[in-house]
Amino acid sequence: MTDPIGSSVQLGDLPLRADLRGRSPYGAPQLDVEFRLNTNENPYPPPPALVADVTQAVAEAAVNLHRYPDRDAVALRTDLAAYLSASTGVALTTANLWAANGSNEVLQQILQAFGGPGRTALGFEPSYSMHPIIAAGTRTEWAPTPRRADFTLDTAAATRVLAERAPHIAFVTSPNNPTGGSIPLDELRALVEAAPGLIVVDEAYAEFSSQPSAVTLLAEYPAKLIVSRTMSKAFAFAGGRLGYLAAAPAMVDALLLVRLPYHLSVVTQAAARAALRHADATLASVHKLASERDRVVDALRGLGFQVVPSDANFVLFGQFDDAPATWQAYLDHGVLIRDVGIPGHLRVTIGTPAENDAFLAASKEIR
Amino acid sequence: MTDPIGSSVQLGDLPLRADLRGRSPYGAPQLDVEFRLNTNENPYPPPPALVADVTQAVAEAAVNLHRYPDRDAVALRTDLAAYLSASTGVALTTANLWAANGSNEVLQQILQAFGGPGRTALGFEPSYSMHPIIAAGTRTEWAPTPRRADFTLDTAAATRVLAERAPHIAFVTSPNNPTGGSIPLDELRALVEAAPGLIVVDEAYAEFSSQPSAVTLLAEYPAKLIVSRTMSKAFAFAGGRLGYLAAAPAMVDALLLVRLPYHLSVVTQAAARAALRHADATLASVHKLASERDRVVDALRGLGFQVVPSDANFVLFGQFDDAPATWQAYLDHGVLIRDVGIPGHLRVTIGTPAENDAFLAASKEIR
Repeated sequence: MTDPIGSSVQLGDLPLRADLRGRSPYGAPQLDVEFRLNTNENPYPPPPALVADVTQAVAEAAVNLHRYPDRDAVALRTDLAAYLSASTGVALTTANLWAANGSNEVLQQILQAFGGPGRTALGFEPSYSMHPIIAAGTRTEWAPTPRRADFTLDTAAATRVLAERAPHIAFVTSPNNPTGGSIPLDELRALVEAAPGLIVVDEAYAEFSSQPSAVTLLAEYPAKLIVSRTMSKAFAFAGGRLGYLAAAPAMVDALLLVRLPYHLSVVTQAAARAALRHADATLASVHKLASERDRVVDALRGLGFQVVPSDANFVLFGQFDDAPATWQAYLDHGVLIRDVGIPGHLRVTIGTPAENDAFLAASKEIR
Repeated sequence: MTDPIGSSVQLGDLPLRADLRGRSPYGAPQLDVEFRLNTNENPYPPPPALVADVTQAVAEAAVNLHRYPDRDAVALRTDLAAYLSASTGVALTTANLWAANGSNEVLQQILQAFGGPGRTALGFEPSYSMHPIIAAGTRTEWAPTPRRADFTLDTAAATRVLAERAPHIAFVTSPNNPTGGSIPLDELRALVEAAPGLIVVDEAYAEFSSQPSAVTLLAEYPAKLIVSRTMSKAFAFAGGRLGYLAAAPAMVDALLLVRLPYHLSVVTQAAARAALRHADATLASVHKLASERDRVVDALRGLGFQVVPSDANFVLFGQFDDAPATWQAYLDHGVLIRDVGIPGHLRVTIGTPAENDAFLAASKEIR
């Protein structure tokens, strides 16, 4: 076996941008372990009817694979508007929706349009680790702002920071990943009121929360508010890669200026529309997962762990003297959870009852 | 019918980046016309066996839609390496290949890693119009450099420009879109030798050309050369959105630092792998299209048009006093071709024999 062509060249030999030197690729380990509770996936496979419908939709779309997709994904955005209208009670239309290959791409497009060199994006940390990475990828200055020690957001302090630092864009993640708490609507309103720039409310886990969606504030703050969502979690569509947002039509017009043309394949558009037709069946898992989350939280507390209150499908817990060592101990028990880099804490995704039992059994031995 | 929520806000009211103000979204008109010869699609639908195989592959992948895809798309990259090795005679491996949602995303990742603020990308124009747009989207300074009046590349002049301007990245499109000509391997070698920075050879239309691929130069210039490709054209997979590149493994490592995690869906990976299994059947259309291209060129010349020699699945022709008016005249005949903004010229995609006949019949009346 010979080395691949070009193996003589090392990364350090290439004219990489200076700010990328020494960095490692993003990513949770993708290990082949019995219990994978590390990436907040929905543990319930898509129902057979959904799989059949996705397959049928792709079969129909595939006969036109030689043609470019609808560049503006109008039919998909219309379906997303119908879903989000029904679930939030806000009458959204196609013009209010935008979609891309995962919410990461949605967020990247927002920063390409409204961030970039000479502009600042702010986040309340710890929060979704891709926010600063996407900021870096678009050369937007990142302004990290700490949460309270208990990981809740101090809204009064946050409004002051927004007014004083005046970031061009601020991310508010609700429920917050990796800590799990939601932000009540009145506090969200105070943040939007205080911000001179845009507020992007990242609602990747909104379906798991009982708090109202920030979508209900869009009519009041059309020039300042963007609400991003994903089909990865509640919709059990992580593999399908479909993120979306709701905003004023002019916000969508702005994203049209930076999106790569034909960014959403015919297959993605067809599969996502098919999955949306099964929203009721898929979202039934949300209630099961919320109930399992409450059971896991109670059990962890019963075992003496400290657990951060969660509105999402994951739980941050501790306190560990050595979180990386504890992470390894779980892995040795066949349970893959996530070390998100918060000292003394680890994050576990809520799985099926059997998976959660395995996690709790390991916890009992590890504590 | 009420206006969409947030309609009171106009694009001009939003804090859009200054360089985006006044711009229009990219894109050829997507009109419902009998003969669509405007976006260089392959006119031959995927064979039924390919459609069946894509459908079967998606059906199998869909049962795991709740799980994230392989972040590094190893199986797909392995298949792409096998295809490219077989078609170029160069023994590439998985580590030499990278893939994304269309070659536009591949090119954007290259500019995110090696371009950006303070860096320059150069192109020999007229060429692929997305190159400067992706440069702008990544805040890379764009250095347009003209081709000869007949649209060929003056290699001696180009090597001087590369040495003098020393762009961080230079795009060499072969065959060149929208003009159609390829660059011989010895001239390509001279360009790579002369360039202090990276050379990205955009081979989106390579399968239509009889020139050897730049892939054959990778072993000699692993620290300087990237060859980008797409499945959109020859593979009749425009709707599937699969672009890829071949380069030294370290180049791929660099792109891992900027790619959005899980950028390629399980559905895209499965569909593209299925399509690759049918490469022989799909690529059979390439020969038909090359032969039709030569027929269309001869017929256009016979009608008195000036035709730029083409190695691709499209032809640039003229000379028109008013190209936009002539474009409209074709549309009035039910034939949608492309005004690529080159004065006096229009571009037509080679279609099926019947489509080409319709185009030539219209040409006879319009000339």
